Amino acid sequence: MMIKPQTLKGFRDFLPLEAKKRQFVINKLKDVFELYGFEPLETPTLEYEEILMGKYGEEADRLVYRFEDHGKRRIALRYDQTVPLARVIAQYQNELPMPFKRYQIQPVWRAENTQKGRFREFIQCDIDTIGTNSTFAEAEIISLLEHVYKELGFKKIKILINDRRVFEGLSPKAIGIIDKLKKIGEDGVVEELIANEIVKDVDEAKNILQSIVTQKPTAYITQVLAAVQQLQNQQDIIEFSPTLARGLDYYTGIIIEVETPEYPHGSLGGGGRYDNLIGMFAGKDIAAVGYAFGFDRIIDAMDELQLFPTELQQATTQVLVTVFDESLKETSLKTCSTLRRHHINAEIYLGTNIKMEKQFKYADQKGIPFAAIIGPEEIEKNSITLKNLRERTQRQLTLDELISFLHTDK
Amino acid sequence: MMIKPQTLKGFRDFLPLEAKKRQFVINKLKDVFELYGFEPLETPTLEYEEILMGKYGEEADRLVYRFEDHGKRRIALRYDQTVPLARVIAQYQNELPMPFKRYQIQPVWRAENTQKGRFREFIQCDIDTIGTNSTFAEAEIISLLEHVYKELGFKKIKILINDRRVFEGLSPKAIGIIDKLKKIGEDGVVEELIANEIVKDVDEAKNILQSIVTQKPTAYITQVLAAVQQLQNQQDIIEFSPTLARGLDYYTGIIIEVETPEYPHGSLGGGGRYDNLIGMFAGKDIAAVGYAFGFDRIIDAMDELQLFPTELQQATTQVLVTVFDESLKETSLKTCSTLRRHHINAEIYLGTNIKMEKQFKYADQKGIPFAAIIGPEEIEKNSITLKNLRERTQRQLTLDELISFLHTDK
Repeated sequence: MMIKPQTLKGFRDFLPLEAKKRQFVINKLKDVFELYGFEPLETPTLEYEEILMGKYGEEADRLVYRFEDHGKRRIALRYDQTVPLARVIAQYQNELPMPFKRYQIQPVWRAENTQKGRFREFIQCDIDTIGTNSTFAEAEIISLLEHVYKELGFKKIKILINDRRVFEGLSPKAIGIIDKLKKIGEDGVVEELIANEIVKDVDEAKNILQSIVTQKPTAYITQVLAAVQQLQNQQDIIEFSPTLARGLDYYTGIIIEVETPEYPHGSLGGGGRYDNLIGMFAGKDIAAVGYAFGFDRIIDAMDELQLFPTELQQATTQVLVTVFDESLKETSLKTCSTLRRHHINAEIYLGTNIKMEKQFKYADQKGIPFAAIIGPEEIEKNSITLKNLRERTQRQLTLDELISFLHTDK
Repeated sequence: MMIKPQTLKGFRDFLPLEAKKRQFVINKLKDVFELYGFEPLETPTLEYEEILMGKYGEEADRLVYRFEDHGKRRIALRYDQTVPLARVIAQYQNELPMPFKRYQIQPVWRAENTQKGRFREFIQCDIDTIGTNSTFAEAEIISLLEHVYKELGFKKIKILINDRRVFEGLSPKAIGIIDKLKKIGEDGVVEELIANEIVKDVDEAKNILQSIVTQKPTAYITQVLAAVQQLQNQQDIIEFSPTLARGLDYYTGIIIEVETPEYPHGSLGGGGRYDNLIGMFAGKDIAAVGYAFGFDRIIDAMDELQLFPTELQQATTQVLVTVFDESLKETSLKTCSTLRRHHINAEIYLGTNIKMEKQFKYADQKGIPFAAIIGPEEIEKNSITLKNLRERTQRQLTLDELISFLHTDK
C-alpha cells in the first residue's frame, strides 16, 4: 500500500525560498542581539514533564505535547523558552555571569486549534536580561527594538509601553476587557465590564475606564524613558499606552508591544518585566525583563510589505555553468570550479539530459539569474557567453571579466 | 516541593560558548553548501508515524520516539532527514527543480543507549543531490568535502571512497566483518568469517578477503575520479579503499567516508549513492547521492585540534562600557549607544551594584576583552580609558579613536 506523503495539520515544510526568508530574519535578529550583548542559548526539545507542567496555567497545560519515553519517564516537548530558561538559571547559577543576557531562537510545540490559523510547531525568538532591577535593562531592550525592526526594513514602528501595576486591584478578567479598548471601543468595554459583573452599572464602568485612560506614566516608566533618551533613540516612536495590558498575568512592571500601522494584523512582538517567574527552580525571586519577537508574524508582515531583498527570491546560486556537449564538459567543470574558488556561488548542470533548453529551464525554476555558455565558438575566442536570464540579454566575457562582473553583481 | 532543575539523560543544554561553536560550524557549512548550489530545506519535527516507521530496519524502529497526539493520531519525532526528504520529493514533485540539491541542518531524536556516549538529541547535517545518475553529482560532493573541511580548519583530511557493488553476492553480515579490517586486522576478519559460518575454512576466508583487497577502482569510480580531477581538487587526499563498506545497506554505488589522521576517534562524516530509497513515497526509483556531516564529531575534533578561532572563546561583546557613578551614567549610556551605532558589539553594565570591581568581574566571567571607563578625569580630558582585560594594560583614547581601534581589533 502506498503511504500518502503529507505533513500533520499545523506543521510545515519550508522549501528553499521560505527557508531562506526564515534564515534571513534570524541572521538579522542575531546580529542586533549580539550588538547589544545578548548571547545564544539552546535547550533540549524534550524535558522532564514535571519541569514544564503547571507553569503555564490550565489551558496551556492541555496544549503541551507529552508522553512516556522508552524508559517510562514522563517527558514533554518544549512549550516556550521561559521555563527552560528558568531551569538553566537554577541549574548553572554558579557558572553564568549576572546579569545574564541571552537570546534563544528555537521551535516550540503547542497542540493548538489549527482552525484559527495557528501552527503547532513554530519558532520562538526571545531575548531576556536576568538578574537585575536596573531600569537600564528595560531601556536597552526598547533601544534594541527600534534597531531590530529598522534593520528588518520596517519604516514606521510604534513601541507601546505601559506599567502593568496601573491595573493593580483589578481582576485578570477586567484587565482583559480593558485591553480590548482599541478593538471594541469605550462602549464595548463598558458593556463587557457590566455583563461580566465586574461593575454594577455604566457609571462605575466609566469611572474605572476613565481613571485608567487618564493615567500618567509612573515614576518608574519616566525613569525608563529617560534612559531610553540617553541611549539616543527616536522618542516619537515610543508611546505610553495606559490601557495596554497584554494577556499574560505574570508581568510585574513595564509591558511592551510593538506594532506598525503598515500592517494592521496584530503586534510584531511583546514583552515586559516579570520578576516572579525565573526564580521558580532556584527557590527565590529573580528579576527579569524580556521580549518575544513574533517570528511568523514578522515574516508575514515582511512578505506583505515586500521587505525581503529581491536576491532572496532568487536561488543562492548566482550562475549556472551549462554543459554544451559531452566533449566540452571538462571546460565547464573547470570554469565552475574556478568561480567557486573565487567565492561565487556557481552550479554545473547535473542532469543527464543536457539539451540547452533543459538547462535553462532548471536555472529558471530555481531562480538562478545567470547562465554561462561555453561552446566551440567561445572556446575558440577564449571567452564565455553570459546570459542574463531575466533580462534575456547576453554578452561575451573573458573568465576574468566574468569573475569581476559576478563579484560586483552580488 | 522543589523540582530539581535537570535535563534528561542524552539531552544537552548549550550555554553561550558551546552554542556559538555550533553556530560557527553551521555558518561555515552553509556558506560552502550555497557556494555549490545546495539550498536549505526544513521539515517538521513531528510526522505521521506511518511516514517514518518501517523505513529504518527493526533495531532503528525501536529507537524512534513516538506517541499518540491530542487528536489520537500516531505521531513520531524526526529520526533522520532522509525519510522526510523522500516525503518532500513525492509531495512537491511538480514544484521542485530537478536535480534537486538541498541541505538540511536540524535535530533528530533517537532513544539510544546513552552509556555509549551517544546523545538522544543531536544535529544532523546532510547534503543530497536528488534525481540524477550523472557522476558529476558524486564528483561535486567530493569536491565540496575537500572545501568544507579545509574551511573548518582541518589540515590533513582523507576522503576514502569505494564502490558498494564490489560486495555484491556477500551477505550484510559478511560485509560488516570485512569493513572492520582496519580495526581487527586480517586474522580477525578471517576468524570472524569462520565463526559466523560465512566460509568453511581459513583458505576460503583468505580468498574472499584477497579478492576484495586487490580490487581496482571500477569504471564508474574511475569516471567519478576523472570528474573530480576536472574540478581541480587535490588528488592526493582521495583514497580508493576496497574494504570500505559503511554500515548501511541502502547504498547502490559510491560510498564515501572522511577521516583525518590528526583525530583518530572515528570518521568526520560519510555518504554515498543510494538510488532505491528516495522514491519510496513517489512509487518509483529516484536516483540520489548524499553525504552526512558528523556534527558533534566535527565539533569534538575541532575542540581537540584547537581549530575554533580565539574570538569564539570570548564574548560576542567586544567592550563593556562601565558606569563610574550614578551622576556619570548618562555619558556611559551615550557612549555605549554610539559604539553600537558604529556596529561595535558593546554593553553597558546593567547590575544595580556598580562597584568597579563587580563590573570587571562581569566582563571577565563573560569573556569581554575590553572595558571602557569614563570617570570625572576622563570627562575633563574629553577622553575614555580603555582597559585590555587580558593583558592588563590601559590607554587613553578619544571616542573616535576608540571606535577605530575597536573596528580594527575585530
